[in-house]
Amino acid sequence: MASKVRLYVDHPLGEEQTVPLSREQAHYLFAVMRLEEGAVLSLINGADGEWDAQVVKAGKKGGILLCSAQTNPQQDPPDLWLLFAPIRKERTAFIVEKAVEMGVARICPVQTDFTQSANRIRQDKLQAHAVEAAEQCGGTFVPPVDDLAKLDRILKGWPPERQLMFCDEVLIGDPVALPEMRGPWAILIGPEGGFSPAERDRLRALPFAHPVSLGPRILRADTAAVAALTVWQQALGDW
Amino acid sequence: MASKVRLYVDHPLGEEQTVPLSREQAHYLFAVMRLEEGAVLSLINGADGEWDAQVVKAGKKGGILLCSAQTNPQQDPPDLWLLFAPIRKERTAFIVEKAVEMGVARICPVQTDFTQSANRIRQDKLQAHAVEAAEQCGGTFVPPVDDLAKLDRILKGWPPERQLMFCDEVLIGDPVALPEMRGPWAILIGPEGGFSPAERDRLRALPFAHPVSLGPRILRADTAAVAALTVWQQALGDW
Repeated sequence: MASKVRLYVDHPLGEEQTVPLSREQAHYLFAVMRLEEGAVLSLINGADGEWDAQVVKAGKKGGILLCSAQTNPQQDPPDLWLLFAPIRKERTAFIVEKAVEMGVARICPVQTDFTQSANRIRQDKLQAHAVEAAEQCGGTFVPPVDDLAKLDRILKGWPPERQLMFCDEVLIGDPVALPEMRGPWAILIGPEGGFSPAERDRLRALPFAHPVSLGPRILRADTAAVAALTVWQQALGDW
Repeated sequence: MASKVRLYVDHPLGEEQTVPLSREQAHYLFAVMRLEEGAVLSLINGADGEWDAQVVKAGKKGGILLCSAQTNPQQDPPDLWLLFAPIRKERTAFIVEKAVEMGVARICPVQTDFTQSANRIRQDKLQAHAVEAAEQCGGTFVPPVDDLAKLDRILKGWPPERQLMFCDEVLIGDPVALPEMRGPWAILIGPEGGFSPAERDRLRALPFAHPVSLGPRILRADTAAVAALTVWQQALGDW
């Protein structure tokens, strides 16, 4: 199935709005995707929904698009953050991609006691992954990706009205249990190797933290992220 | 965390049982993982649970292990098949890995009308992925992976007592709804691009087929597989 090119731009979208292209965007549209003047593509900017736009000027170093009609309204995800401990590079990118598809408002890489120090992240690369995932999967919202932060610092500054679902392999066998509390939430996925005993004690003592089991088998962190997002979206989200 | 090597062998496991190693297994254990005689590892065979075994002979072309004690009983997944249309190679391998982690009894690659013909599968490679996923994720069961088969042929020979949950992006916006029917089930994940109108009509007319929505965003096939397995495991499975 041939489908329309879908591009994220950091520019307002609206009726008769013109959108200038960077050199990189022009290269992608005109050299890689081989669009010509007059071609129609889809634009998103994370805030104004999805718009059809026509190529009015195509050049090697830039170009101009003209918005014609909104094709989809802006659709924001529920107020859900995904906190996860980075793992190997490709799998970390995968978690970001999956989080965008599943619908989260913010992506927060966290450093836990058992996070391998080799698993550094490049925030800019992960943000680009989030943009690409929104472009490819029909979304109109792009969650911001935070810089890596230590879990204990995040928990110190935690907004107390935000509930936290945390998934811990120690819980294997316990039933899935999520309290029916609406409002802002976050999901915390531990690293491979789980949380440290100190972290686990701390999490269990927090009034806003709710442990949840994800079945009797051990899940990789990327699988756990999708499974946990499914559990939450079904119970409290927009599914 | 250093963890014990975990190996799948195609050999009975039990008290005082000796297990001969192939050249490939010997290479992995003694050259790659650098185990020596006397070392203890974990064995699974998909049927007898998990056993501790000691290296009693280590050679370049083979070796012998001796089972000592069962460390985990055999745990079979629910009677759930996963049918999916192959996508790009790495993502197809991912679906197999996730299916093993999430707990399925059988993995069935299906060719649908919109399955790209470039997405051929190597059944032996996918089966090896299933083995590796079970080794890595603490499972004791390895689901068989079928050869690619056409969806219409599979549906023609379908056992009528097996319910089929199918996930279709056309359903976006409809609520998730899974009938509370116990017994054998299967999940069908469509290809990127969805089902053809003919397939959709046919599926909707089958008395054992149940359409389910996976939220308002479009999910990639590999994301949809994990999400669908979560929905099913929570409602009817062993979570």
